[in-house]
Amino acid sequence: MAALARSVLVTGSSRGIGLELVRQLAASPQPPQHIFATCRDPKGPRGKALQELAAQHASIKLVQLDTVNLPSIQGAMQAVGSHLKDQGLNLLINNAGISSHATLHSLDSQEMLDVFATNVVGPLQEFLPLLEQAAKGVGKEGLSCSRAAVINVSSKLGSIGLCLGLPEAPMYPYRASKAAQNMVTRCLAVELQDKGILCVAIHPGWVKTDMGTEKAPLTVEHSVRGILTVLASLSQDASGAFLDWDGNSVPW
Amino acid sequence: MAALARSVLVTGSSRGIGLELVRQLAASPQPPQHIFATCRDPKGPRGKALQELAAQHASIKLVQLDTVNLPSIQGAMQAVGSHLKDQGLNLLINNAGISSHATLHSLDSQEMLDVFATNVVGPLQEFLPLLEQAAKGVGKEGLSCSRAAVINVSSKLGSIGLCLGLPEAPMYPYRASKAAQNMVTRCLAVELQDKGILCVAIHPGWVKTDMGTEKAPLTVEHSVRGILTVLASLSQDASGAFLDWDGNSVPW
Repeated sequence: MAALARSVLVTGSSRGIGLELVRQLAASPQPPQHIFATCRDPKGPRGKALQELAAQHASIKLVQLDTVNLPSIQGAMQAVGSHLKDQGLNLLINNAGISSHATLHSLDSQEMLDVFATNVVGPLQEFLPLLEQAAKGVGKEGLSCSRAAVINVSSKLGSIGLCLGLPEAPMYPYRASKAAQNMVTRCLAVELQDKGILCVAIHPGWVKTDMGTEKAPLTVEHSVRGILTVLASLSQDASGAFLDWDGNSVPW
Repeated sequence: MAALARSVLVTGSSRGIGLELVRQLAASPQPPQHIFATCRDPKGPRGKALQELAAQHASIKLVQLDTVNLPSIQGAMQAVGSHLKDQGLNLLINNAGISSHATLHSLDSQEMLDVFATNVVGPLQEFLPLLEQAAKGVGKEGLSCSRAAVINVSSKLGSIGLCLGLPEAPMYPYRASKAAQNMVTRCLAVELQDKGILCVAIHPGWVKTDMGTEKAPLTVEHSVRGILTVLASLSQDASGAFLDWDGNSVPW
């Protein structure tokens, strides 16, 4: 099996799904040459698991990136760009996200905006030149994760059509942020298609992580194995899709 | 024809669709008893058309309401509540909204958040007690605008499924904000159904207003006539729907 991509960047990789993505990518038979594992504080105590993983794999580079801080995003882009030289970044996985269990009564507008800032806006804009560079690589045709792709980790809770689990779990800010993120994914897919960049939204399933809690039915290993299989299979037809970890389509 | 509702509040009513909603409601054969026409500065020069309209109709009360300013929302709620005594507010039309033509390259995160603050968050939370009061009114059953309803003025540009007009008009912040608002409408519909409150998202069409520009095919009179006809027809089945000014369903 060929490598999924020569270079991959994963945001929010200090724990949960992000950490497991880095772990499985690094341990794959044909690992990417560069795995940029980003989080807010890679050198701090919360980055410990990531530090241990990086010590075992030369492919993993830890990069500081706070997705709501523009200077931090720009610094990360510079650091990543200098590693990649002129080959660009193949695969950007926007995994960093925050949850919010606010109900209609407990909700405040600042919380709504904080969730939007992290879950919708993200670092794409600054990394776009690196993705465009990768997409122009010699002999690259069609759309794929090995050429250039943006994968936005979304959630079935962001499906307006399903509107799952209400009224038990309103989670207004989280749901609204994921619907907004899905719109961005779809717009990006249309806008970036001609530049050779694939854009897809992925629902990782309800996973046993700090965010998903122990009640979740899926292990993080299982979810991430599924996600990486789906990513390897993506082509032109999937651009703008909303897929789950098993490759099934999710309604908007 | 019975009145659409005893009391109606329209946000962003100093111009465009909001102003026309107030105008047609006041001029209808059976006008609402109370039409609360709100905008940021009803006494200023931008409120002139609204002032002239209010001078002709005793039913229209001008109320200051800036949808991104909590003290302003709370002040408006107090003013409206004291007019309504114990009968509550029947119909809240969240029409205030801002546009943004930002492309992927011109976009900045602050603009994205400003658009979210206006278009998604809104004044609902503070007005909910007044709607709940109206819903409890004697002899009220089923869901309807005459009992208690929240109408969110949305846009077909917020349809993720359609993803209309791309890549010519990316409008990322506006589209994402309307997708998020649609999610909120749908969650509200589920959560408030048992309290007797109807929630619907309405696409007013592409209308000749300051926001829609002169290129738009629909007049504001035509769009608003359609919207008011749709609102009068809404019942239980429509709760959580996304409808256009002609009553057609729009995909999420």
